[in-house]
Amino acid sequence: MAEAAHAMNDLTPIRWTGDALEVLDQRELPWRETWIPCASPEEVARTIRDMAVRGAPAIGITAAYGMALALRGPGGPGKLREAAEAAARTLAATRPTAVNLAWAIDRMLRVVVSSLSGGRDAATIRRRAEAEATAIHEEDVAMNKRLGRHGAELLPHECTVLTHCNAGALATGGYGTALGVIRAAVEAGKDVRVLADETRPYLQGARLTAWELARDGIPVSVICDSMAGSILRTGEVQAVIVGADRIAANGDTANKVGTYPLAVLAARHNVPFYVAAPSSTLDRCTARGEDIPIEERSAEEVHVVAGTRMTPPGVPARHPAFDVTPAELISAVVTEDGVFRAPYVFDRRCGER
Amino acid sequence: MAEAAHAMNDLTPIRWTGDALEVLDQRELPWRETWIPCASPEEVARTIRDMAVRGAPAIGITAAYGMALALRGPGGPGKLREAAEAAARTLAATRPTAVNLAWAIDRMLRVVVSSLSGGRDAATIRRRAEAEATAIHEEDVAMNKRLGRHGAELLPHECTVLTHCNAGALATGGYGTALGVIRAAVEAGKDVRVLADETRPYLQGARLTAWELARDGIPVSVICDSMAGSILRTGEVQAVIVGADRIAANGDTANKVGTYPLAVLAARHNVPFYVAAPSSTLDRCTARGEDIPIEERSAEEVHVVAGTRMTPPGVPARHPAFDVTPAELISAVVTEDGVFRAPYVFDRRCGER
Repeated sequence: MAEAAHAMNDLTPIRWTGDALEVLDQRELPWRETWIPCASPEEVARTIRDMAVRGAPAIGITAAYGMALALRGPGGPGKLREAAEAAARTLAATRPTAVNLAWAIDRMLRVVVSSLSGGRDAATIRRRAEAEATAIHEEDVAMNKRLGRHGAELLPHECTVLTHCNAGALATGGYGTALGVIRAAVEAGKDVRVLADETRPYLQGARLTAWELARDGIPVSVICDSMAGSILRTGEVQAVIVGADRIAANGDTANKVGTYPLAVLAARHNVPFYVAAPSSTLDRCTARGEDIPIEERSAEEVHVVAGTRMTPPGVPARHPAFDVTPAELISAVVTEDGVFRAPYVFDRRCGER
Repeated sequence: MAEAAHAMNDLTPIRWTGDALEVLDQRELPWRETWIPCASPEEVARTIRDMAVRGAPAIGITAAYGMALALRGPGGPGKLREAAEAAARTLAATRPTAVNLAWAIDRMLRVVVSSLSGGRDAATIRRRAEAEATAIHEEDVAMNKRLGRHGAELLPHECTVLTHCNAGALATGGYGTALGVIRAAVEAGKDVRVLADETRPYLQGARLTAWELARDGIPVSVICDSMAGSILRTGEVQAVIVGADRIAANGDTANKVGTYPLAVLAARHNVPFYVAAPSSTLDRCTARGEDIPIEERSAEEVHVVAGTRMTPPGVPARHPAFDVTPAELISAVVTEDGVFRAPYVFDRRCGER
């Protein structure tokens, strides 16, 4: 157990070397552990857009480091602001649904702008930006551990938990949100077994959730997404826990496509349905789920599995990458600040984080 | 349209050459059209067990031909009965959920037994058995066309229909059940677009439903199983139609895993949910869904996609191949005899077909 608990604190999908960023290529898991070096915001943006790194908190952190890299070029304060704003545009355009991305970019921009208006020199601004990105990363891991402890209290001493996609160490700075709750429950001595939806089309559950839980010695079995319904019906699952890409002010939650049907089925079978996400995922500026932009990704990602095209030529496919689960189906939202239950009112003044 | 209507009548996954059986290897679709020659009931059983042929009506027909092949060996009437009974056991053991399999084998056995008790010679018995298998095949196609016409009346003039797995020509003697309803609607001049769930783990929707509908010029798009929920929520789907592997006397229906969640989601969004199946799928001897045996297939079929293992070593997977949709979620059951609505009472005397 001590060994497992140790390993739980290790895994991060993003490494800052002090000089450059290295991003774990999650498209290559579970087969190979390959790190992509990034020296510019454009290279960072590519890792996000092409899903080498994914997961709302992780892409926020990655973008923050991308902002820090943008300040590396030569030039005085005026150039720095221009570079930061250009990088912000490039990074923000990579993926539309996760709000943590905009949140992290915004936080980095503020550091640059306030340092500039404070008359700091270029070297100081660069150092401050790097420190801010590192802080965003470290805070995320710390938040996930707090979140995990809050969430762990919701789980019975012995239980089977169903999860969708990967809201784990790989989706965050480390430790994970939904999987952070599971890790914290295991660290608290609970006996947790996990069922991981494979999560088509990217198979984040089969490839990533299974990989990182097995690495930590937490029992996990993989099922196809379509099997969750009949398994929930049997009564063998005591809780469903998922992450979130964006939570609207009323609690409506965007997450990986397939989350909404799980929530409907959990409600039908009286299984609690929990959303675990850091407060940076709360989008107080978005009133309701209908207002969350849902990314439509390339149909190729549905057609082609493991390099083989599974559909006949000429037949189209669709790929909405996320869906919205209405607040009424969510038993609780767990953040680093605690466990929130309906009615959800995440309505601090818009713009205030 | 005339061309499309012509093609619709063509496709069958099972060919009887008069001498041997040829089974279309559906594991090779949509890439290659390969036919497996079968000269013995053991070879036929293998095509069913290994899912070269699949779909409840199609495996029934295939098994019927397998029974006919069992009588090919030399020997007098006593030997024929023994051979038929041995083949019946082998073929019945291939897959547990579809009831059409037992139904077809039983029908073939009756022909053998009644011919034997009528004092017929071996050549006559062989001829009668082949004629019976051919009749089962031809009746299935004719039933599907009647079924299709009944079902087509349920569809609006313009509509999008969501289907799961493949209940098409490839799953039957030809024309299909769920896809037979769609073909009949198209033949009646309706404007039908199809959304095909890809249907993990075997991808029958992506590979087979997409292939046979595209072949007939019927518009079809593929989605991941997990996308059906949010698409049903948008209101763009006017009906869900699926096939069945076994329908209990009370209407509870076993079908490909993933059918039950679709039915739950359709009910939530007031989209009618139809089951289309020949009356040979009605199992009057099984009172309720709980009594239907659900086949647990190899976890390898979940782990490995297109020859690539998607899960990390040592992580188990589960593979319930079917689920049961309770009758309360089924808007209508369509058979060749018409459209049936709740309360379902498929209770002719048990044993009578």
